[in-house]
Amino acid sequence: MPVIRCEENPVVRTQDVPPSRPGFRVLGAFNAGVAVCGDETILLLRVAEAPVPDREEDVLIPLLSESGGDVSVIRLMAADARYDFSDARVVSENGRIAMLTSLSHLRVARSRDGVRFAVDREPALFPQLPSEAWGIEDPRITQIGDRYYVTYSSVSPRGVAVGLAETTDFRTFTRLGLMLPPENKDVMLFPERIDGKYYALHRPVPKSFGAPEMWIAESPDLAHWGNHRFLMGLSEQAWDSARMGGGAVPIRTERGWLVLYHGADASHRYCMGAALLDLAEPSRVIARSARPFLEPEADYERNGFFGGVVFSCGAIRIGDTIRMYYGAADEVMAMADIPLQDIYDTLADET
Amino acid sequence: MPVIRCEENPVVRTQDVPPSRPGFRVLGAFNAGVAVCGDETILLLRVAEAPVPDREEDVLIPLLSESGGDVSVIRLMAADARYDFSDARVVSENGRIAMLTSLSHLRVARSRDGVRFAVDREPALFPQLPSEAWGIEDPRITQIGDRYYVTYSSVSPRGVAVGLAETTDFRTFTRLGLMLPPENKDVMLFPERIDGKYYALHRPVPKSFGAPEMWIAESPDLAHWGNHRFLMGLSEQAWDSARMGGGAVPIRTERGWLVLYHGADASHRYCMGAALLDLAEPSRVIARSARPFLEPEADYERNGFFGGVVFSCGAIRIGDTIRMYYGAADEVMAMADIPLQDIYDTLADET
Repeated sequence: MPVIRCEENPVVRTQDVPPSRPGFRVLGAFNAGVAVCGDETILLLRVAEAPVPDREEDVLIPLLSESGGDVSVIRLMAADARYDFSDARVVSENGRIAMLTSLSHLRVARSRDGVRFAVDREPALFPQLPSEAWGIEDPRITQIGDRYYVTYSSVSPRGVAVGLAETTDFRTFTRLGLMLPPENKDVMLFPERIDGKYYALHRPVPKSFGAPEMWIAESPDLAHWGNHRFLMGLSEQAWDSARMGGGAVPIRTERGWLVLYHGADASHRYCMGAALLDLAEPSRVIARSARPFLEPEADYERNGFFGGVVFSCGAIRIGDTIRMYYGAADEVMAMADIPLQDIYDTLADET
Repeated sequence: MPVIRCEENPVVRTQDVPPSRPGFRVLGAFNAGVAVCGDETILLLRVAEAPVPDREEDVLIPLLSESGGDVSVIRLMAADARYDFSDARVVSENGRIAMLTSLSHLRVARSRDGVRFAVDREPALFPQLPSEAWGIEDPRITQIGDRYYVTYSSVSPRGVAVGLAETTDFRTFTRLGLMLPPENKDVMLFPERIDGKYYALHRPVPKSFGAPEMWIAESPDLAHWGNHRFLMGLSEQAWDSARMGGGAVPIRTERGWLVLYHGADASHRYCMGAALLDLAEPSRVIARSARPFLEPEADYERNGFFGGVVFSCGAIRIGDTIRMYYGAADEVMAMADIPLQDIYDTLADET
C-alpha cells in the first residue's frame, strides 16, 4: 500500500478533548491545521461542540450571544416542520441554511512524536466577534520566519468569511481581521515570499453563477489581498468534478509547489489529491491528480459525524515522505505517511 | 417636488451610442460612473450590446472568444425548452444563469454643461481577459489626486468579480487586476485616505447563507484589500428589504460621508436612498434612509430594457445640491438635482 495510515489512528478522538464549558459535549475534533514549533508537532484542532441534549424531542443550537463573548442556546422542536434536520451539520429552512448544529472553536494539541497528542484543556481561539457568531473552523497554519499565521473560516449569519490570526508560541494568539469577505473558505498562505510578494490560495463560492473553485491572490503584507486570479476548477468527470478546495499549506518541492487538495464527485465522497504549481509563478498549474491518493476507506473515515470524508488542512515534509494529518468523517484526526513519489504518480500534466 | 429631474432626460439614450462593431446594436447605455475632468463632466457608460437578430426563432448570445480579444456569437433557438428566457437580461438553465443576453463594455461621454453629452465612437474599456468574457459593467469613478480610479464588475462564467483600472485623461486606461474575487459588486473607493488608509465599500453575495449586503474594507495602496467588516444590511420591512448595494462614490459632507445606495423591496422596484457614515470612522453608520429619495416614476424609469429601476453609480456635489446621474430601466442615463436637505430629510438615526 502506498499510503501508510498511522497504526494509532485516529490520533485525536472526540473523547480526548474536554468540552469548553459545562453542559456541552464534543461532536468532532477534526480538520486541524499543522505546524512544527520547537520540538513539538502542533495540531490546531477544529473542535465542534453542542449542548448535551436533555429531551429527545428537542434540538439544541449553540451560537455566540449577540452581546459577544458568551454562548447561548436555541431550543428547536425536532418535529417542527419548518426545519429540515436531514444534514447532521446544519438546520435548513426554506431550502437555505438557517443554523449550524454545532459551534466550533480552535484547540491546540501537542506531540513530541507526531503520533501521541496531548490536547489543551482550554480553547486557543474561541468565537468572540459578531463575524464568528456561528463558529471558527478549519484552520491552516503557515510558518513565516518565527511567526505562525492561522487562516480560518469565520462563520456567522452574514456568511463564511476568512479570518487571520498570528502566534509565536501557540499559547497566545492575535486576531488580524478578516482577510477575505464571504463566501470564501480553504485559504492557505504560501510559506515564503515569491518575487517579493506573499501569495494565498482561496476558494470563493459565488452565488449567481460560477462554481466553488480555487483562486490565487497576492499581498504585500499578509493582511491585504489583491490581483485575484482563477487558478484551477472542477474537473470534467474525475474524482474532483463536484467539489474542491485547497487542503494543506503549499509545500516546496523540486518539481514545484505541492498543494494537497480535497475533491469530491457526485457521490459526495471527499478524497485527497494534489496539484503542482510553478515555483516562481504559482498562478501556473503544472499538473494535478487524475485520481486521488487517499480515499475514505478506513472505518473511521467511512463512519462518523459526516461519513465518507478525508479532509486535510496540513502536512509536513519529512525527507521523501509527506506526513499528512487529516480530518476523518468530520469527527476525528488521522495521520498518514505518503511517499512523495506516490503522490507524483497520481499527477497528469496540465496543458 | 424636491427631486428635480433634468428636463432633457434621458441625457444619454441608446441611439446616441454607436455600436462597437458591425452587426451589433446597443440595448442600453446606463449605470455610468461620473467624474469631473478639467472643464468636462465625464460619464463612463456601461454600454450593453447584442447582435442584431436575423431570425425571429433564434436568440443570439455575444461573449468574448476563448482566445480573447474578439467577440463570438452563440445561436440558441428561442423554443429550446432547456433554456429560460423570461428575464430579458439572462438565459437560465436548470434554474442557474447560463449566459447573459448582452455583452457590456465601458464608453466615455463628455459634456461641458453636464446635460448635453457627446459619446465617444470607440469603447474606453472593452472586455479582453478571461475574467471579462461576459462583459464589464457598472463602473464607479473615484478621483484621488490627479488620477481617476475605476472599479467595475468583471463578469465571466467564473462569477462576478471586481476589476480596478486607472486613467488620468479618460482616453487611455490601465487595468490594475481584480481587487476582489467573486461574487462581489457595487464597489466604491473613498476619495481620500482616512487616518492613512484607503477605504472601499463592497457588496459580496454569499451562496450558502447570508444576503447581498454592504461591507467596508481597507487598503494601503488601493490594489490590496483587507480588514473586511460588515457595514449595513437589508432593512426589516422598508424600501430596501430585499436587495441593496452601494451606488455613488461617497461624498464628504458636514454630517458625514454621504453614500447614495440602491435598494429594492419584494416588488423588485429599484429605488435610491442614502446613508451617512462617520467621517473619521467610516465603518460606523450614523443614519440611513427610512424611505427612498428617488423612485422609478418617470416614463423612462418605469419602462425600458428592465423597467422600474433607478440605479446611480455616481453623483457630484454642487453647493447644497447633489447632481445625481443614474441609469433608468437598465437602458438610458438620466440626471436629477436633489437638494442635500431633501436627502437628509429621508434619514433616520442608526443606533
